[in-house]
Amino acid sequence: MPRDNLSVFLAERPTGDIIPGRTLKLRTSPAPEPSDLRDGEILVEVLYLSLDPAMRGWMSDARSYMPPVQIGETMRGLTACRVLASRTPRARPGDVVSCAAGWTEYAVVPEGKFEPASHYPGLRDPLDMLSALGITSLTAWVGMTHIGGPQPGEQVVVSGAAGATGSVAGQIAKIRGATVVGICGSEAKCGWLVGELGFDVALNYKAPDFEQKFKAATKSYIDVYFDNVGGKILDMALSRAKEHARFVECGHISQYNTSAPEGPRNLSKVITMRIHMQGFVVFDHAGDFPRARRELSQWLAEGRLKKTEHVLTGGLGVAELGLVGLYNGVNTGKLIVEVKKPNRNASNL
Amino acid sequence: MPRDNLSVFLAERPTGDIIPGRTLKLRTSPAPEPSDLRDGEILVEVLYLSLDPAMRGWMSDARSYMPPVQIGETMRGLTACRVLASRTPRARPGDVVSCAAGWTEYAVVPEGKFEPASHYPGLRDPLDMLSALGITSLTAWVGMTHIGGPQPGEQVVVSGAAGATGSVAGQIAKIRGATVVGICGSEAKCGWLVGELGFDVALNYKAPDFEQKFKAATKSYIDVYFDNVGGKILDMALSRAKEHARFVECGHISQYNTSAPEGPRNLSKVITMRIHMQGFVVFDHAGDFPRARRELSQWLAEGRLKKTEHVLTGGLGVAELGLVGLYNGVNTGKLIVEVKKPNRNASNL
Repeated sequence: MPRDNLSVFLAERPTGDIIPGRTLKLRTSPAPEPSDLRDGEILVEVLYLSLDPAMRGWMSDARSYMPPVQIGETMRGLTACRVLASRTPRARPGDVVSCAAGWTEYAVVPEGKFEPASHYPGLRDPLDMLSALGITSLTAWVGMTHIGGPQPGEQVVVSGAAGATGSVAGQIAKIRGATVVGICGSEAKCGWLVGELGFDVALNYKAPDFEQKFKAATKSYIDVYFDNVGGKILDMALSRAKEHARFVECGHISQYNTSAPEGPRNLSKVITMRIHMQGFVVFDHAGDFPRARRELSQWLAEGRLKKTEHVLTGGLGVAELGLVGLYNGVNTGKLIVEVKKPNRNASNL
Repeated sequence: MPRDNLSVFLAERPTGDIIPGRTLKLRTSPAPEPSDLRDGEILVEVLYLSLDPAMRGWMSDARSYMPPVQIGETMRGLTACRVLASRTPRARPGDVVSCAAGWTEYAVVPEGKFEPASHYPGLRDPLDMLSALGITSLTAWVGMTHIGGPQPGEQVVVSGAAGATGSVAGQIAKIRGATVVGICGSEAKCGWLVGELGFDVALNYKAPDFEQKFKAATKSYIDVYFDNVGGKILDMALSRAKEHARFVECGHISQYNTSAPEGPRNLSKVITMRIHMQGFVVFDHAGDFPRARRELSQWLAEGRLKKTEHVLTGGLGVAELGLVGLYNGVNTGKLIVEVKKPNRNASNL
């Protein structure tokens, strides 16, 4: 009996903010069948969809690190899935895999485009593929390890600190012995960063005395700035950079939804303070993922790294509003949509 | 018989442009005497004063890589000098030395704060200490060698290309086998860059079709951008950066004379193109100067590196206007003030 497949496609490229109901649209089509599979392919049911700041960039046709999603195409997205049928020895029905199935309930995924649970050491829950051991944690690990390189006693500032990447980046810096200031968008998030995640200081950038507090918190200047937001806070971080500071350019979320981005006026500090500013895209570092996941998994097991998940239930119908919320800071930790309630008995985890 | 010493001091910190006659002022005082020298010191007569974009920064009390010049203090500057008297075995009267004597005719320079001619391999003229083998050439060498690292066939863009640093940076990139586009501020400079210095392409940023021509000249995108100017041209270079481009942040001359600098709106390209942006200050790399000077001197001798000097005669009285002109692009190559006409017979070169 053919099943319906609910999916979300890109209907229109946004120029500024995503417009709910116009930028993305839902559609129902027949789900792919096991009999559709060719050698090497698997048929999956999507359990969880990761919502990520990068999605706004994927909707734009500006030159970037990967081609944009095409109009009419199913929106791109990372997912944790259960295998329904398989024509490869690398996965059996019931296995959990991660892949980029996109904003859809069912998908066919070719060989080499999925990762089995065995790639996730210590995995206990399919959610971990998208959160604690997922791409945002890998992003935090790569940026801190290869660019930031915080040393014990150094001063690290993380923006977007209550987000999926920032919350892990700050925790990694703490594990490596640095003093960590997190910047986020609410007092509640500040409390969570300090109380739950062990940040030394957390500052709410919406507070009226934020600039003063930022200066006070960085009075010995900044060794490592892990940038998730760009814009004004990047500008302030430049003005407080120590000599030879490292600026880990991971994301500029404050600038994604505008066609008139603001450039940092203090960029000349790059010269006078000899700043090393390095942008990166985590997908370039796939060779490091096994090592990163081993380390993250061990920290998790030891209780040194806290999981930070923010799961929206309600299926794909709530995904677009979830994404809009992401740019407005509704989430605390990794934002994930539960697409299909996982039947844990049916999974080989 | 005591001699008069003409010097120039900082009278007022400029907020925007340097204001001739107000920012800097002339004064006459008695010149130091040989009898004033303590052990290790030398008394020098300044032959040439180097005028450099960094001078605007030294006038400002914003946090930077060295303390600002104080109000009332002789303006800082690099010089080529003749030794009049010495109380160190490292220099004899008549020797030529380089040092930071400042905007003055006579100065006492302590041990360790001057470099004898022997540090300049192949030196034939005291001018070379400030031009071909001087700090701007060292700056070009350090930036291209340690950050830019152009490979044969790569596309290099140099802004401020007709300036002292840019003209040498572009030539070094050519020597290393890259294709070089120079950006400068006049058609005459364009002709000089291509005709005399061997740049592949030169573009006048004041031309009405500059943006179009810039795009055409960078159609295969930019591997190395050697930035002397910041501002709008940096922004354009970001928009044309190739993946993994290196941005050598050497100077932001377009932004020095303003209290409201413009930030580059395309800075997010640092992330999507994984740009390595690195600021540097040449004085950090003093350990490399002997190697850099040997290499520069050899290229000069082989005719592969052309000297580019722009000498103002008229003594210290013309220096301030010379500096103002520097920010307006009056010079082609290294701008130098002849402070005292060198009596070549009296020098031990």
